[in-house]
Amino acid sequence: MQTIFFKNKPRMIATGSIAGPKECEGVVGKYVDKTLLDDMFGESTYEKAECKMLTYAISKTIENAGMDEKQVDMLISGDLLNQIISASFAARDFDFPFLGVYGACSTLAESYALAATLVDGGYAKKVVAATGSHFSSAERQYRYPLELGNTRPPQAQWTVTGAGGAFIADMGSVNDGQNYPAITCATIGKVVDFGVTDVNNMGAAMAPAAADTILNHLRDTGRKADYYDLIITGDLGALGSRILKDLTWEKGVEIRENHVDCGEIVYNVIEDEFQGGSGAGCSAVVFNSYIYDKLRKRELNKVLLCATGALLSTVSSGQGESIPCICHAVAIENS
Amino acid sequence: MQTIFFKNKPRMIATGSIAGPKECEGVVGKYVDKTLLDDMFGESTYEKAECKMLTYAISKTIENAGMDEKQVDMLISGDLLNQIISASFAARDFDFPFLGVYGACSTLAESYALAATLVDGGYAKKVVAATGSHFSSAERQYRYPLELGNTRPPQAQWTVTGAGGAFIADMGSVNDGQNYPAITCATIGKVVDFGVTDVNNMGAAMAPAAADTILNHLRDTGRKADYYDLIITGDLGALGSRILKDLTWEKGVEIRENHVDCGEIVYNVIEDEFQGGSGAGCSAVVFNSYIYDKLRKRELNKVLLCATGALLSTVSSGQGESIPCICHAVAIENS
Repeated sequence: MQTIFFKNKPRMIATGSIAGPKECEGVVGKYVDKTLLDDMFGESTYEKAECKMLTYAISKTIENAGMDEKQVDMLISGDLLNQIISASFAARDFDFPFLGVYGACSTLAESYALAATLVDGGYAKKVVAATGSHFSSAERQYRYPLELGNTRPPQAQWTVTGAGGAFIADMGSVNDGQNYPAITCATIGKVVDFGVTDVNNMGAAMAPAAADTILNHLRDTGRKADYYDLIITGDLGALGSRILKDLTWEKGVEIRENHVDCGEIVYNVIEDEFQGGSGAGCSAVVFNSYIYDKLRKRELNKVLLCATGALLSTVSSGQGESIPCICHAVAIENS
Repeated sequence: MQTIFFKNKPRMIATGSIAGPKECEGVVGKYVDKTLLDDMFGESTYEKAECKMLTYAISKTIENAGMDEKQVDMLISGDLLNQIISASFAARDFDFPFLGVYGACSTLAESYALAATLVDGGYAKKVVAATGSHFSSAERQYRYPLELGNTRPPQAQWTVTGAGGAFIADMGSVNDGQNYPAITCATIGKVVDFGVTDVNNMGAAMAPAAADTILNHLRDTGRKADYYDLIITGDLGALGSRILKDLTWEKGVEIRENHVDCGEIVYNVIEDEFQGGSGAGCSAVVFNSYIYDKLRKRELNKVLLCATGALLSTVSSGQGESIPCICHAVAIENS
C-alpha cells in the first residue's frame, strides 16, 4: 500500500502563482496572479529571480487565502537548484517553520502530500506548500550556460519560469461556509529506473515512474481511471505523455481520454520547447492557476495530480549513472 | 507554536550506522555497525561510496529492527550532495515509497520529525529515516577538490564520512514487549540568518538557528532545559557549541551542563578537523550508534536531538549571499 488516505479532508483554500513572459503567452497567462514582462524580475541573477518568484508565490498564496503570515503554521517547499536555495532563501523572508523537500519536478505533489498529512493529522492547521523553477538557472545548472548557445535536441523540454503554491488548511480553521476542494489521498512513489541515460530525454525517463504510481494509486484506492475528470502529470512533455499512455494501456488501464500533461499544455507555440515544458515550476504554475480555477468553478471535480521527478544530478550523469525517477500523486476533489 | 506533539509516541525500535576509518578512531568506533577501513568502500568515486554507505545504513537499520524490506512502508532520506543523489540512488535499491528531504545537516532531525508524524497519525506503520555524508564528496562539491591541497582555516570543520538511520514504528505493529525510546515531540525550525558569510565558519552561522529552535522548543513544551539528560546538537563544532551556550545563556537558559555537540565529540584527535565534525553524517553516525545505545541502556532517558543545517550553496555564496540556517529538534525519551 503506497497510498495515504486523509479522512479529515484537508482543504486547498487558495493558490498563488507567477510565470514568465513566454509562459504567459500560453493558457496560464489568463490565470496566474502575476505575469512577468522580464524574467529577471528586477534581480541581478537568474537564481535571485527564481527565489523572488517563489517568495511572491508564497506571499500571494497567503493573501489569496485571506490570511496573514502570522496565521501560517508551516511552509513546505523545495526547488531544482542545488541545495534548494530558492526555497531556503524564500523561507528566510517569512517567520514560520520550514520543511525543505526535494523530489526534482515531483516536489509540488510531495509538498502537497506532506502538507495534507500534517493538516489531516492535526499537527498543523494552515500549511503553505510551494515550488518553482527558472529556465535560465536550470539550464546553466543542469546543462550548459545559455551564453554557449548550445543546440537543443528534439526530445528536449523547456524548463518553466514560474512558481506556484497552495494554502492547505483544516476545515475547522477556515469555516467560511465555502466548499473548497479537498486533498483526499496521496500516493507516495517508489524510485523507478528504466535505464535511460539521455539527460535531454526526461519524458522517457520519467514516464515509467508516472505509470507505476498511477497504477498503484488505482490499485490502492480501488478506483478506475475514469473516476477522475483529469489525471494530470507534471512535466512528461509530449513524448513522455505518449509513453505513459502506452505503458498504462499495456497494463489494461486506459487514460487516453482524461490524461493531460502540464508540460504539454503550458506553451502555446512549440518552437524551441520541442516536447513542451518541464521543471518544478511546470506543474506549480499550471495546477495552481488554470487547473485550480477549474476546480473552484466545478468544471473539474476530481483531479489526480501526478508530479514526476528525475532524480539525477550532473555528477551522477557524469559518472555514467542512469536516471532514477519518481512520481507522487495527490487526489484533489470537490465534494 | 513550532512544536508538534506525538500522542501515540512512535517508537525508535532500531538504528543502523556505518562510518569511515577516521571517524571510527573516535567514540563511535565501538558502536557503529560497520567500520570502513577504506573510505572508498570498494567504489570508484566518493559519491558512489557515499551512496553505498547510505544504502548500507538503511539495510542495516531494517535488519537491526528484525524486519525485512517488505515490511517497510516508507523511506525518508536526504543528503548534502546536489540533487540529494545519495538518497535518491539509495532509494532506487529498495522497493518502498520514498520521500526526499533536504535540510543540509539538519536532515536527520527533519526526517525523524516527518517519520514520527506519519507513524503517529496512522499514515504509515514502519518508516526508515536515514542520512549520511562523505568528507571527500562534500569537499569537492562545497569547497575545493582535495587534489588542490587547499589550506583549511582554523574555524573549519571536517565533514563526517558515515551514514546512519533509524527505524520508527508504531507500538502496535511491534508488540514484542520491549520498551523502546519514543519520539514524543518535534520542533520545526525557522530559517535564521545572522549575516555570516564565511563558508568555513558554519558553527557561527548555525548556532543562532540552534538557539532559536531550542528556546522555542522549551517555550512550546513548558519544559526547563534540565528536563533533558542531553541536548545534543548536530554539527556546530567546538566554536559553534560555545556560541550556542552563550546565546541561550543570554536568554536565561543554561545548557552548559547537559549540552554536547556531535561534531565536538566525533573525532578523537583534533588535527586537521579543527572545530570538529560536520555534515549530515555527523549527527547520523553519533546519534544512531553511541547515543541510541545509551538510550537503550537507559544511561540516557531524555534526549533532545537538535540537528542544524546551513542552507547555502556555492552559487548563493558566489552571489554574495549570507548563510541562512535552520535547526529542527526531536525529543526522544524512554518511558
